[in-house]
This record gives sequence, C-alpha cells and structure tokens, in this order.
Amino acid sequence: MRAKREALVSLFTALKERKVDADIIDLLMLINSIKGIYTTSSCSGRIGILEEPYLGSKPLSRWLLKKHAPIMFEEAKESLKNAERGMISLKSQPPIFHIVAEDLRLAKKVHELGLASGFKYTTFKALKGSRVLVEINGTEYLTAPLGKDGRILATDEHLAFSVEMGNQMLIRAKSRIPRLWENFEKLKANLGEDNLFYEVKSKLE
Amino acid sequence: MRAKREALVSLFTALKERKVDADIIDLLMLINSIKGIYTTSSCSGRIGILEEPYLGSKPLSRWLLKKHAPIMFEEAKESLKNAERGMISLKSQPPIFHIVAEDLRLAKKVHELGLASGFKYTTFKALKGSRVLVEINGTEYLTAPLGKDGRILATDEHLAFSVEMGNQMLIRAKSRIPRLWENFEKLKANLGEDNLFYEVKSKLE
Repeated sequence: MRAKREALVSLFTALKERKVDADIIDLLMLINSIKGIYTTSSCSGRIGILEEPYLGSKPLSRWLLKKHAPIMFEEAKESLKNAERGMISLKSQPPIFHIVAEDLRLAKKVHELGLASGFKYTTFKALKGSRVLVEINGTEYLTAPLGKDGRILATDEHLAFSVEMGNQMLIRAKSRIPRLWENFEKLKANLGEDNLFYEVKSKLE
Repeated sequence: MRAKREALVSLFTALKERKVDADIIDLLMLINSIKGIYTTSSCSGRIGILEEPYLGSKPLSRWLLKKHAPIMFEEAKESLKNAERGMISLKSQPPIFHIVAEDLRLAKKVHELGLASGFKYTTFKALKGSRVLVEINGTEYLTAPLGKDGRILATDEHLAFSVEMGNQMLIRAKSRIPRLWENFEKLKANLGEDNLFYEVKSKLE
C-alpha cells in the first residue's frame, strides 16, 4: 500500500499545517485507521460568498467569505464590500469525502455505507486498476447569484433569507456526520485496523 | 438482455406519450441502438421555478415553471403569481443521462466518454451483479432562493439577473450534447449495433 502511505503522509502534514477542517479530523483519522481504505481530499461542508471572473471559471474564483459553520448576515454583507469584478454568489456545499478502496468489494461496502448514512450523492467516481475512488456526497447545494462586478443586486432582506437557507442546508447536511462516524466504526470492527496508519501517525504526529 | 428489452419498451412507450425531452430523442435512440448498453431516466437539462413545502421535500415539490430551453424574465415573473406555500427557488440543471452497461469493461468506456464530452460529474452510480449504472452529468447547477410562502423577495432586476445566469448555465451545459453524440457514434462503430433495439422499435414505433 505505497499509495496509502503517501496519502497518510499528506494527511498528517496537512494536519500539522492546520489545513484540515477541524470538525472532521476525528472522522478522517477513523477512516484512515481502517484496513484497505484511505481518504484523499475531503471537506466538512462549507458556506460562503464566491467571486468568479466569469461563469464557471473555478480556478480563477476567490472566496470573499468561507466558513465550515453557519455564517451571520452581517459578515456576509460585510464581505460583499470586497467584491471587485465578476459574478458574486452565495454558496452552500455539503460535506464531501473521497475514499480510495483497495478493491471493488471494499468499495461497495463504502458506497453502501455512504448511502445508508444519508449521503444520497455517493458514487464510484473512478476505477483505476483494482483500486476504486468512492465519493461520499450530499445533495444540499445552494448557488444563489447576488450580483456582478462589485454591484450587489440582492436587498438586505433577500440576502438574509438566502443566508438562512444556506445555513439550514449546511446544518442539515452536517447533521449526518455522526451517523457516518458510527457506520465507519462498524466497518472498522468488520475489516480490522491498519498498522500502517499507526506507524505513520507515530512518526509524523 | 431482458432488462434492456424492458427499458426499450418503456422508452418507446414514453416516446408515444410525448414524455421524452424532444432535444435528446435522437441521442437516446443512438445510445440504445448500441450493443451492450441502454438508457434509463434521462433529462436534456432544464430551468424553472420550483416551490417546495419545506427544505429538501423533493417529492412534495411542484414546478411553477419548467422548460428545457432558456426562459424569459416575463414568464418567470408571471409564474411567481402562482406561488402559495413553501420555499420558492429558481433552478437550472444540466443534462443528465443514466446508462446501464452490461459489464464493467463497457461501463468504463461510457464513463470515459462522458468525461471526454465535458460532463465533469460523470460517475459509476451503482454496481449490481455484473451490470453498472453510469451517470453522465454536468456541474452547472443553480439554486437561487427567491422567496417564501407566496412572498417574493427578489427585486425585478435581481430576478432578471438570476434568470440570465440560469439561462447561460443551461446553454453552456446543453452545448456539450453534440460532442456527446459524436462520441456515442464512435462507440457504436466500436461496439456494433443491437438487433434487439431495431426489433423493439419496429414493433412499437
């Protein structure tokens, strides 16, 4: 499992640099301690204000505000003052986990686990050789256009309403994380723990 | 291929009842004429105004307006008069195709084809026995909250702006359909045509 070793080194390095979302650190530790599976990029769910130079120009976009917990109307409003050029949207996105499984049999277990935990957009994202990338994902996506080129079209009341919607969707999506945790605990009891995880952990933590 | 026969019967029945999106009928015919694969539920991409009794209550939601082509500001505005109770949102959704492949080897070809045609959310959605369900999907999803319980919070200018965004996303997403068509033509040349398709077609068309 050279690939898992590399993924674990990246994870513990990111942890040291405080680049991992705090509210899913324990869950990522749990998943990676299970034999035969490991995580790659994951996010605990987020809400914020995004500015994109033009439609769909994701690589050139920048967050005027981004949090992994509900935001306040005031901070959303305040962040809009920094808008300069391009499309401005309020975004809310559910937690997303990328999990590599050693083979199809394990991948099916992880896929089933994601669905059973209420993450309805759980899919097999890629099949490479015998390895499978499973994406555990929710359906709570909000993209609300607010304005363009620094000019805000949303009224305060409408912005407050949209922020409330986005917050509710985020809270709802995040509320499934404990169920995911429980199901991975069961999977660990089933598949056993991975010594490689504890070896890399003791070296790098 | 009993499952394909049943899927074809459903498709031709839906066609007779004019329940298939007109702008993807030819594409669905092409895909289903290929050996080893067939389509289940698909949509050519749509935009409209959705009313949901409460957040995420998809089964109880109703469309105040729904089209498979760009909409006008006036019709969006007009449709809002019919709002009664619950959350009101403007929605724009890319084309989505569900394709069953007989085995993993074919599924990988379809998956690759979806990605190569610019549909970035193409995934393996389910694995059942040897059969695989591939979802060809785009990333252009818009959900813009407009108001609640019949009360519209969006100003006319903001609504017009949001409709324009949604239309642009829809046009962009639909612009990939010709590429998808070309790639399925190539796949047909590679995999050959399915007599079952022509047999069911001649009986039911």
